[in-house]
Amino acid sequence: MKALVYKGPGKKAIEDRPIPDIAAPTDAIVKIVKTTICGTDLHILKGDMPTCAPGRILGHEGIGVIETVGSAVTGFRTGDRVIVSCISSCGKCDYCRRGMYSHCIDGGWILGNKIDGTQAEYVRIPFADTSLYRIPAGADEEALVMLSDILPTGFECGVLNGKVQPGSTVAIVGAGPIGLAALLTSQFYSPAAIIVIDLDDNRLQISANLGATTVINNNDGKAVDKIMKMTGGRGVDTAVEAVGVPASFITCEDIVAPGGVIANIGVHGVKADLHLERLWDRNIAITTRLVDTVSTPMLLKTVQSRKIDPTRLITHHFKLNTIMDAYDTFDAAAKTNALKVIIDA
Amino acid sequence: MKALVYKGPGKKAIEDRPIPDIAAPTDAIVKIVKTTICGTDLHILKGDMPTCAPGRILGHEGIGVIETVGSAVTGFRTGDRVIVSCISSCGKCDYCRRGMYSHCIDGGWILGNKIDGTQAEYVRIPFADTSLYRIPAGADEEALVMLSDILPTGFECGVLNGKVQPGSTVAIVGAGPIGLAALLTSQFYSPAAIIVIDLDDNRLQISANLGATTVINNNDGKAVDKIMKMTGGRGVDTAVEAVGVPASFITCEDIVAPGGVIANIGVHGVKADLHLERLWDRNIAITTRLVDTVSTPMLLKTVQSRKIDPTRLITHHFKLNTIMDAYDTFDAAAKTNALKVIIDA
Amino acid sequence: MKALVYKGPGKKAIEDRPIPDIAAPTDAIVKIVKTTICGTDLHILKGDMPTCAPGRILGHEGIGVIETVGSAVTGFRTGDRVIVSCISSCGKCDYCRRGMYSHCIDGGWILGNKIDGTQAEYVRIPFADTSLYRIPAGADEEALVMLSDILPTGFECGVLNGKVQPGSTVAIVGAGPIGLAALLTSQFYSPAAIIVIDLDDNRLQISANLGATTVINNNDGKAVDKIMKMTGGRGVDTAVEAVGVPASFITCEDIVAPGGVIANIGVHGVKADLHLERLWDRNIAITTRLVDTVSTPMLLKTVQSRKIDPTRLITHHFKLNTIMDAYDTFDAAAKTNALKVIIDA
Amino acid sequence: MKALVYKGPGKKAIEDRPIPDIAAPTDAIVKIVKTTICGTDLHILKGDMPTCAPGRILGHEGIGVIETVGSAVTGFRTGDRVIVSCISSCGKCDYCRRGMYSHCIDGGWILGNKIDGTQAEYVRIPFADTSLYRIPAGADEEALVMLSDILPTGFECGVLNGKVQPGSTVAIVGAGPIGLAALLTSQFYSPAAIIVIDLDDNRLQISANLGATTVINNNDGKAVDKIMKMTGGRGVDTAVEAVGVPASFITCEDIVAPGGVIANIGVHGVKADLHLERLWDRNIAITTRLVDTVSTPMLLKTVQSRKIDPTRLITHHFKLNTIMDAYDTFDAAAKTNALKVIIDA
Repeated sequence: MKALVYKGPGKKAIEDRPIPDIAAPTDAIVKIVKTTICGTDLHILKGDMPTCAPGRILGHEGIGVIETVGSAVTGFRTGDRVIVSCISSCGKCDYCRRGMYSHCIDGGWILGNKIDGTQAEYVRIPFADTSLYRIPAGADEEALVMLSDILPTGFECGVLNGKVQPGSTVAIVGAGPIGLAALLTSQFYSPAAIIVIDLDDNRLQISANLGATTVINNNDGKAVDKIMKMTGGRGVDTAVEAVGVPASFITCEDIVAPGGVIANIGVHGVKADLHLERLWDRNIAITTRLVDTVSTPMLLKTVQSRKIDPTRLITHHFKLNTIMDAYDTFDAAAKTNALKVIIDA
Repeated sequence: MKALVYKGPGKKAIEDRPIPDIAAPTDAIVKIVKTTICGTDLHILKGDMPTCAPGRILGHEGIGVIETVGSAVTGFRTGDRVIVSCISSCGKCDYCRRGMYSHCIDGGWILGNKIDGTQAEYVRIPFADTSLYRIPAGADEEALVMLSDILPTGFECGVLNGKVQPGSTVAIVGAGPIGLAALLTSQFYSPAAIIVIDLDDNRLQISANLGATTVINNNDGKAVDKIMKMTGGRGVDTAVEAVGVPASFITCEDIVAPGGVIANIGVHGVKADLHLERLWDRNIAITTRLVDTVSTPMLLKTVQSRKIDPTRLITHHFKLNTIMDAYDTFDAAAKTNALKVIIDA
Repeated sequence: MKALVYKGPGKKAIEDRPIPDIAAPTDAIVKIVKTTICGTDLHILKGDMPTCAPGRILGHEGIGVIETVGSAVTGFRTGDRVIVSCISSCGKCDYCRRGMYSHCIDGGWILGNKIDGTQAEYVRIPFADTSLYRIPAGADEEALVMLSDILPTGFECGVLNGKVQPGSTVAIVGAGPIGLAALLTSQFYSPAAIIVIDLDDNRLQISANLGATTVINNNDGKAVDKIMKMTGGRGVDTAVEAVGVPASFITCEDIVAPGGVIANIGVHGVKADLHLERLWDRNIAITTRLVDTVSTPMLLKTVQSRKIDPTRLITHHFKLNTIMDAYDTFDAAAKTNALKVIIDA
Repeated sequence: MKALVYKGPGKKAIEDRPIPDIAAPTDAIVKIVKTTICGTDLHILKGDMPTCAPGRILGHEGIGVIETVGSAVTGFRTGDRVIVSCISSCGKCDYCRRGMYSHCIDGGWILGNKIDGTQAEYVRIPFADTSLYRIPAGADEEALVMLSDILPTGFECGVLNGKVQPGSTVAIVGAGPIGLAALLTSQFYSPAAIIVIDLDDNRLQISANLGATTVINNNDGKAVDKIMKMTGGRGVDTAVEAVGVPASFITCEDIVAPGGVIANIGVHGVKADLHLERLWDRNIAITTRLVDTVSTPMLLKTVQSRKIDPTRLITHHFKLNTIMDAYDTFDAAAKTNALKVIIDA
């Protein structure tokens, strides 16, 4: 089968690989129908993820059709259409039993990282019963590709951790795909204001289209001042960090109101300054989270009932044999205006 | 009346001052019976608190007797015995209505800071109906002095924010009075283990007496290693920072388990490094809080029903006219083994 | 001044009454601009409310202008435009401090019940600072009349107690003004389905217009069967009782899913059968609540940010001197299709 | 093997049965070391549980040793010592993923009910990885028999649902084994008062020994009056129903304070009157629950750290071949003072 393979820092290739086999009774083999590329895949390609060894098939998102199942799989059978979750969950360990699938002892984020992933014609999914979700008949399958990672990530790490409430004020720092997923899903809770901060006017325009009540281009470094003025000096109830660099985290520190939450989504490579000398008495919370995908069933219901339309995050389409172009397009987002790209397998 | 007055950085004096008068209809004048000294008073004396101007009578803790009340005070009358809360709460502003008395628009922590405090024979208490608590008949009044600040601070900022649970593992970094208050009140929730870390063997011995299941002297810098070993490499569910310096905050970052909470109590003067490159995917929360004293009625019930005995934090007794000695004793805690000192007015 | 006065069971009259005076330093006198009639007013008129004595001016809803304030009122001054809350809250008692204003020791629901109410040219509001809400400049004041009672009642008792969640399934039994308020405010949380059950086709049509995803006329007694079929035999996550009779409460018992909530809003005059023999192992909660109006600031933000339009509940307009007609119209709702009637004072 | 078999209403017998075999890859066969009898077993014997057919081996509690495991069991191996949970949880279905194991699609309470149970030398446990709990080395195994059912039931249905808090007031109606389990585990949260009501002086004496602050024999029907007097007319924050008859449920309705919770544990055979005409405006919650055993890992930690001693609920010991005597003793509790009886297999 065709597969996109990580070949070491800066290198990737389309290769021919054998179709994977069932390795454990709880496995399923899924024939990929649609997959996509995540910012994390770019991190791997930069060599930033030592957990991912050269030779790995990338990709942790997608939808497909069950090809075969192991002997202990009871929830799926050949021919079932499924969403692949980016997180593999054994369903048995202490973390899984507490809903923290991200820290599953034998699972977690392993797909396209420690085991071969979804940017291929077939993928082996461990713990299939607790790591795949059935696609309802008649669903828009492109929309559901967004349920593999980006929507639960924006929702769990940004919106749920950020305790977005009716009438509250939310700021999202970073309007990439993950920030936009937080923007879409924060509207589940009817906040009064959603401010999006970025440096790219195109992404800010998209943010406005997707429901932001204010967009701020922070090229002039005045976003904090503007937000404090807009909020009467009080700040925002929820500040979502969706970039992953110290500067944007510190912006969140600067704008969070007393009693508010800084909900970090960004993948950080270095430490940030925590200004405890200003924050110790502000009654705030700072949260971090690797997505657990525990909200996937809930999100599926919101998509099926048309509370959100995740296809609005999709900008480009490719075939698997042109996935190298898809990577180029996704990596050059500033030029191509790419958000999520769909790759048909 | 006699009062302990802040005279500028490094200086204090006992002075004669006029007995305060009712200034607003919601005021009460309280004749102080017992007061105490807080670590924050020492901060003021070092000149670290610009909000507190020279000339200020210090002190934000104590119990006393109502002398007079303003015309709008309905809950108290002359002769009532009361606990003075360190936080003044108007009961009307948005923050007060949300239970965040610490951020009360006209109140908050003003006593012995922006207005004259309790280390005197009399004190004026603004918003008396919502800033004083009635002492039940027959109560141990020395125990209740601990309800002005130290118990709600340890409980709200450390234990409630830290989500201490039955069977959970708690670490408290710092065994000063506030850390010990967190130690006492964390036992309300029956954690399986409470580890206390400090550099002072006397305080660790007291911690063991007060319920710590493990005490660690970190003079050798090996506390983190020991805790990770004790917890099977997992870390603690709740890490309480009760010192207020970067090193102890970073200890908390090092020992918090996935899914855990770092509950900051310490008053910090400088920033700390936040190692987001290690924490971004750990599903943790970091909380800060200036005590709201919203738990005072609950704590009063636990003292009255003998669930905790706060008098175990009291080490020394003085009279108001020897309060200068009380300060010396409290300030030289490493030598005197002082925790809380009671000053009879 | 003109006022609508309860004259004993079945009797009411417009009478001339003196303009009320400040009676306590925390009072305000409000000149009523707009008021309305509540279903509870009809209960009083039937003689069902022994707390309300003949001679009482009715009404507990409305907006107005501050005429005068008592000496202890600090938050309002003459000329301020305000929403009158149906609940008077002293802000000081244990219940108020816990956010349970409905059970305020000296307040609660007293307006138009134990003290004279808002269906008059002027009204005395006790505890003005904590029982009135400032109207933002430029607001639609008719919309805000709905914030006195109906919106917080539907929201707090039905939606918050009912734990409505994104993607969840809600059933509202009863499409009167309160049920419709629950319908409007449940949409803050993006449930996947909102089923409204009633016996009146007009109200069901309005429900559909206001966001119900399914409406069921239960004249054939088949609502339970239909809902169980729609939900695959599972039932609904939230069942809101908005009528106040045993039959509709039992409908809720019949349709609540395992793990779900029955949120009672209805004012009940008699007991209902609780089928514990079926419910003891269903992991459900049943909640009751007299509105606390603790959500009024939040609701005001949602109205101002146009998340809901409460004017859609207003069907008729009257002048105060025709309030007897307003009562007739409101009481004959089945014929007049009246929901909320606005009365300009 | 020897087994206690239900032979139809009123009849039971010790019979010889074949040792069970693995039937599904997720099964384990457990050699029972200790088991016990539950009040529910008596219900079955009365013929009240149509789900339990004659011929069934009874029992859903116990500890044992793994004899064999199915091919998909990864968490246990032959020789492991385990607690058997009364609830079988597949770990995969929607209910299990939400922590509602009691409603597991293929599991729930099936042991000794729909499949053969633990009152035998061996038992087949379905979904072994998610329905058994490893016994720590050196643990008191008799104590852990109480973790199969009685402690999680008292804790989850009574204490967690009842929201017991530090300083709060709890009433437990019924001092049988389940009520006493609620009594023991409510102390995890340091309530100020725990009132136990029963009709049996011996059980009340035991309640006092186990931590009740007040015990009331309600033979005179004055328990409600006494509790209302004790609480200043306010009532209790948490009322736990641990009997399962209408009268005790109504006692809970009579004593619950505004803002309080009625937490039902009792297994009810008939409906009860719900006095909504008094409760609709009391801001209360009523909860029901079949135990989920989701708290078993937490409870195990509290037992291991000696926060509670569940052996205090054990009154009698038998061998499996005298289990008929054990039933007699347990069934005649009023005469024998039996609480939990241990049966060594």
